[in-house]
Amino acid sequence: MTTLTLSGARALVVATMTTAGHTAEEAEIIADHLLDCELRGLAFGGLARALSITERIRAAPEPPQPIRVVTETAVSATLDGGDQVGYLVGMRSLELAVAKARAQGVAVVGARNTWYTGMFSYYLEKAAEAGLAGMIAGSGPAVVAPHGGTEGRFGTNPIAFGFPSTPAPVIWDIGTSAVMHGEVTLKARLGEKLEPGQAYDAAGAPTLDPAAALEGAFGVWGGHKGSGLAMVVQLLGMMSGAAADPPGISDCGFFVLLVDPGALTDAEHYRRRVAAFAASIRATRPVEGGGAVRAPFDRSVACREETLRRGTIDVPKPLVAALRRAAGFLASGDARDR
Amino acid sequence: MTTLTLSGARALVVATMTTAGHTAEEAEIIADHLLDCELRGLAFGGLARALSITERIRAAPEPPQPIRVVTETAVSATLDGGDQVGYLVGMRSLELAVAKARAQGVAVVGARNTWYTGMFSYYLEKAAEAGLAGMIAGSGPAVVAPHGGTEGRFGTNPIAFGFPSTPAPVIWDIGTSAVMHGEVTLKARLGEKLEPGQAYDAAGAPTLDPAAALEGAFGVWGGHKGSGLAMVVQLLGMMSGAAADPPGISDCGFFVLLVDPGALTDAEHYRRRVAAFAASIRATRPVEGGGAVRAPFDRSVACREETLRRGTIDVPKPLVAALRRAAGFLASGDARDR
Repeated sequence: MTTLTLSGARALVVATMTTAGHTAEEAEIIADHLLDCELRGLAFGGLARALSITERIRAAPEPPQPIRVVTETAVSATLDGGDQVGYLVGMRSLELAVAKARAQGVAVVGARNTWYTGMFSYYLEKAAEAGLAGMIAGSGPAVVAPHGGTEGRFGTNPIAFGFPSTPAPVIWDIGTSAVMHGEVTLKARLGEKLEPGQAYDAAGAPTLDPAAALEGAFGVWGGHKGSGLAMVVQLLGMMSGAAADPPGISDCGFFVLLVDPGALTDAEHYRRRVAAFAASIRATRPVEGGGAVRAPFDRSVACREETLRRGTIDVPKPLVAALRRAAGFLASGDARDR
Repeated sequence: MTTLTLSGARALVVATMTTAGHTAEEAEIIADHLLDCELRGLAFGGLARALSITERIRAAPEPPQPIRVVTETAVSATLDGGDQVGYLVGMRSLELAVAKARAQGVAVVGARNTWYTGMFSYYLEKAAEAGLAGMIAGSGPAVVAPHGGTEGRFGTNPIAFGFPSTPAPVIWDIGTSAVMHGEVTLKARLGEKLEPGQAYDAAGAPTLDPAAALEGAFGVWGGHKGSGLAMVVQLLGMMSGAAADPPGISDCGFFVLLVDPGALTDAEHYRRRVAAFAASIRATRPVEGGGAVRAPFDRSVACREETLRRGTIDVPKPLVAALRRAAGFLASGDARDR
């Protein structure tokens, strides 16, 4: 592992992203999101993702186009992401939705033609800072089988809800797949097995082999109920015009709905009620032998605070070297850690 | 069992509801909802519910007040249900939300101070008929423990999403509790046991005894992920000003968000894409030995068609007698089935 300061890690991501063709402003938007993953202990979506972005941009047959607003009203908008990375399309969608919801009380924005939109909690935390509650749903390539089926129909389809509160918002952010895509690829690389019920092979038989799962389909989370939620997320993502089953890493759907609680009730009173309710969850008598009950987002907030106090993150050496190469800091092939 | 014609069953509910103090128009709204439960094979929310409504109205210290619009904009409204039964408050909320979403593209309506709002799929089917997609969430008395806890914090908190499609909409409608309230009370009456993991007694110990569960707390569906969703539903319900833990059967929160897909994309094209996607779910290769994969709402649609073809429903004799008494058709105490 290499220990990087937070500013050093950020500079490395920014340099990698500008070398990949992004403006300085765009690179900062992406770096902020990836660094927040690292702060929250979600390394798979952090610095490692910068490399995946670079590879995806290089592999594209054509350079991305500017993000374009296709339709727009006072309370809605549809964006064509122009095959830009989702961190940029997501932020543009969020900013539009925040402005409209603050002005009108509610807003809906859909985006298509994008990929890698990151943690939805990242966007909902910003919405909560603007005083807004909301929901984000995202669709993608059909790799998850519906309950009772053995062929991919859904993306790993994340869905998240956020609520303004004090000191931190309440944000629930889940994937509707029984297993994360990154977890399967990692286990394939390490030669580890999946858990029962997590995947089917290409012939439709249950499998514990991650390589076979990548050729077949993942299971869905939550049985029959969870399968329905995964379908809901897919249909929300498709409302922007995104494909039901796009090829490779492309044309994901991103759906944001924001509500100003002040449109329905006293906003400040609601914020206090959310905080009090979250406190009552944490104060619930735990099951015997169990720890304190957590509210959604508590773990992320605690981890982020700890990382910020420490001021550094530990990153695998080969990843740092690869990022330095991608950023043009090292000659290609020079993988030593300096 | 007594076999009733559909029109006979409806007339019985209408008479019971008018005797309980509702206008003819209100009684028809309630009867339509309860009959749809019966058509869809969900008898616990059907004719039996008419009795529960009557008992609840009789037990109230004061008669209900008219439903009142507390705040309203072009895209939002908050209703005070006036302690009216939720079938009426839900329909009023839905009608407002449909009108606003059709005019503006998106709308949010919250209602408080109501009880028994029924099947959320009932409302979302009407929204889908009006060409709208949407979500409904409802909060209630704290009887469900968060994951890792043993005390009630959430209501049984239903949440539903609906999408316009052809020939029938796609509607996902679930409860976030590990077990339905009606199922627990029924098992208590029959002396049957609950499943493991479904409940805690008042001291916080896991229990299979439904009577002990009613004194303690139900478990939540879906483990940690499901617990977060139950919290989301509670916070959505509270946005209308509904209590976090109202006493008895009262002050439930009802939250409706509707979106016109035409605000984001071509509405007719989207409707066809939803239908094609649902068809692709049904055509998924099933697990070995399993039946065809179902899309959400398929079972309800099939059951309703069959009941409509048959033209009759079977209702327990004592229930028919009790409803006839409540409707004033029989002298009190005359429980014979005529």
